Amino acid sequence: MEYREMNKDALEARLSELRAQYEAFQKMQLSLNMARGKPGKAQLELSDGLFSALQAGDAMQGEDKMDIRNYGVLTGIGELKQIFADLLGVKKENVILGGGSSLNLMFDYISQCMTHGVCGGSPWFGQKIKFLCPVPGYDRHFGILEYFGIEMLPVEVDENGPDMDMIESLVRDPSVKGMFCVPKYSNPGGVTFSDETVDRIARLQPAAEDFRIIWDNAYAIHDVSDTPDTLREIFSACKQYGTEDHIIEVASFAKVTFPGACVSCIIASDNNLAQIEKRLSYQIINYDKVNQMRHVAFFKDADGVLAHMKKHAAILKPKFDAVLHAFSDKLGGKGIAEWTKPNGGYFISLNVMDGCAKRVVSLCKDAGLVLTGAGATYPKKNDPRDRNIRIAPTFPSTEELLQAMDVLCVCVELASLEKLLNK
Amino acid sequence: MEYREMNKDALEARLSELRAQYEAFQKMQLSLNMARGKPGKAQLELSDGLFSALQAGDAMQGEDKMDIRNYGVLTGIGELKQIFADLLGVKKENVILGGGSSLNLMFDYISQCMTHGVCGGSPWFGQKIKFLCPVPGYDRHFGILEYFGIEMLPVEVDENGPDMDMIESLVRDPSVKGMFCVPKYSNPGGVTFSDETVDRIARLQPAAEDFRIIWDNAYAIHDVSDTPDTLREIFSACKQYGTEDHIIEVASFAKVTFPGACVSCIIASDNNLAQIEKRLSYQIINYDKVNQMRHVAFFKDADGVLAHMKKHAAILKPKFDAVLHAFSDKLGGKGIAEWTKPNGGYFISLNVMDGCAKRVVSLCKDAGLVLTGAGATYPKKNDPRDRNIRIAPTFPSTEELLQAMDVLCVCVELASLEKLLNK
Repeated sequence: MEYREMNKDALEARLSELRAQYEAFQKMQLSLNMARGKPGKAQLELSDGLFSALQAGDAMQGEDKMDIRNYGVLTGIGELKQIFADLLGVKKENVILGGGSSLNLMFDYISQCMTHGVCGGSPWFGQKIKFLCPVPGYDRHFGILEYFGIEMLPVEVDENGPDMDMIESLVRDPSVKGMFCVPKYSNPGGVTFSDETVDRIARLQPAAEDFRIIWDNAYAIHDVSDTPDTLREIFSACKQYGTEDHIIEVASFAKVTFPGACVSCIIASDNNLAQIEKRLSYQIINYDKVNQMRHVAFFKDADGVLAHMKKHAAILKPKFDAVLHAFSDKLGGKGIAEWTKPNGGYFISLNVMDGCAKRVVSLCKDAGLVLTGAGATYPKKNDPRDRNIRIAPTFPSTEELLQAMDVLCVCVELASLEKLLNK
Repeated sequence: MEYREMNKDALEARLSELRAQYEAFQKMQLSLNMARGKPGKAQLELSDGLFSALQAGDAMQGEDKMDIRNYGVLTGIGELKQIFADLLGVKKENVILGGGSSLNLMFDYISQCMTHGVCGGSPWFGQKIKFLCPVPGYDRHFGILEYFGIEMLPVEVDENGPDMDMIESLVRDPSVKGMFCVPKYSNPGGVTFSDETVDRIARLQPAAEDFRIIWDNAYAIHDVSDTPDTLREIFSACKQYGTEDHIIEVASFAKVTFPGACVSCIIASDNNLAQIEKRLSYQIINYDKVNQMRHVAFFKDADGVLAHMKKHAAILKPKFDAVLHAFSDKLGGKGIAEWTKPNGGYFISLNVMDGCAKRVVSLCKDAGLVLTGAGATYPKKNDPRDRNIRIAPTFPSTEELLQAMDVLCVCVELASLEKLLNK
């Protein structure tokens, strides 16, 4: 029965039960952390072969004919560009490799826009600049925009992606210069943009000539379920409308190998790449080519990466299932929460009753379970309905995860009852 | 006898000899490259132990108690900070580790100044900004300044460092916001700033509150000769004048291990570090911690690094000697060239007769020897006397180097005679 339909006495009785359970958790001195989308130890160990993938005495030159140990090869080694190109369905010539962090590539691209503008346009510094922000979204995207003083316009996301009617309307404002998005298995909703959404994004006609979409394809190959989503390739979609220049795509192996030591890439049209490469030539002599080649030696090719991702999925699926089963068992039918059931990515998005997210996170914290801060999935940490909580099931062991779900579900119920009873 | 004192017939006779030698070189179809300060293959092999320094199964956590393979440890692992601190005579707490490129750290620091100003000051973007540039200097420093539209004021360097009278005068201009310099074994002169120069830099009282010196200590431990230079530690020098905030120091292991896969650091006062770390928290989650730990495992401690540097010196000294002997044998006493005799670093700076540097580099190129472009050691590639050539002896084998010196010295003589004979 939904709590809304229960009378006050029944709710009070349930509240007492839950408080007792909550106090029991507090006595257990738990120390559980589900704050970030970090791979677990078993996932890291899948890539331990990297340590020996490249050895002294191996060929130190690839197709670029340069010693990977020495200076040079500004845009990264060809063999790894090919792997990213094959995985993402783009041309190798449009790939530039970065260091371990696609976040850094995104930060740097916006930094470039601020001081140097876009492909010959005016620098953004000093202009009123606005960006579209599908919500709930990735807190570090919002962080970059906040750091550079860019105004954020939230756009709601449903199961097909962001509200395209709203986006088509907002881009008529010439101060709207772009959008950050995670088009596949979005952070935190796990939503993959539908083919129609991708098509509508491709045919956007923004007023700003220097409109750029940061297409953060962080989870391009990160399937978890047996019925994975597919994302339409954005550059081919743009090609028919001549809008390839609108897209700056990034990806990385952060959640493929080691987040602490991986490789990343930026993919863009010839026009955009020319500007990025020029900047790069002032900025760096090369990123870590040995680590690039180490990844090539470990995976051989794109199929090697995909086979590796199946091992991740085998570890992650029980964890996602554990969360979904817990939600269904403990919160289902009570009318107090909704959650996504993603086919991949790193997160499950939980919506509790309006005004309850902060309370749930706070209750969890006091019982030893650290969650992503409430509001983190919205620009400036401001979730207007205070209801969204990002659930990151990957890092804890399954045992810890089950414990954490017990705590979380009790806290969701508690906060809901407090609200219903005006406590 | 100096060529200046020889009569025209003698000069013409010598010119004919040299032309014959030059033509002989051209017929040899040489392909020699001394353009950049790259370590040679034997130097790279000194660090091949890095490939196996860290293995699967080794402890994956250091003093920071975080799995180096996973996300986290924003400012880098403590063990490697300690090694840099010990090598540079600074406090571990003032070290932040970067990726493989100190150039990137410097670029990024200037980028930060452009959009965010210095420690709460006004952003530099849109202001008239000038930087002091000791000359001859490092082309990539000038490149960063050029990219950001910062005006460059050349300051001549002698054996004690830059002309401090001139610097003390120029910093009275509030639009002079800083200086790029290589204080030890400078690129290209191999000059180490004297204790007095360091002291005068430390007690500078610039008009600009947001004055910052990029102290690129690229060759801090890169001795070549048996009588190495010592550089006074800059932060301790600044401490007595309360000017620590003026200094942003960077260093890297680019020429210690692999330029293609190394580690770098930025060192600054608490005030400056707070701003850098804040930016970092928006920019990246971590640099490559596995590579950081790999370097720690390989070297153990600062003494391990210094012992390693002696192996580099053993390889480099014969190369530096070969260049110096060639210059002395072939150009000495002719009054047509001067050169530095550095105790370390990566370069020898050659000054030919005024107006002859471009011609020498061009003649060399046509004989199959690529040198650093003439003028590269000056802002905007403009050497006002067209006389400085940066000699990078490290990359070629000793055999190639001897060959290259033969070509270079003939070209220097040729260009000088052409000038003296008005040809």
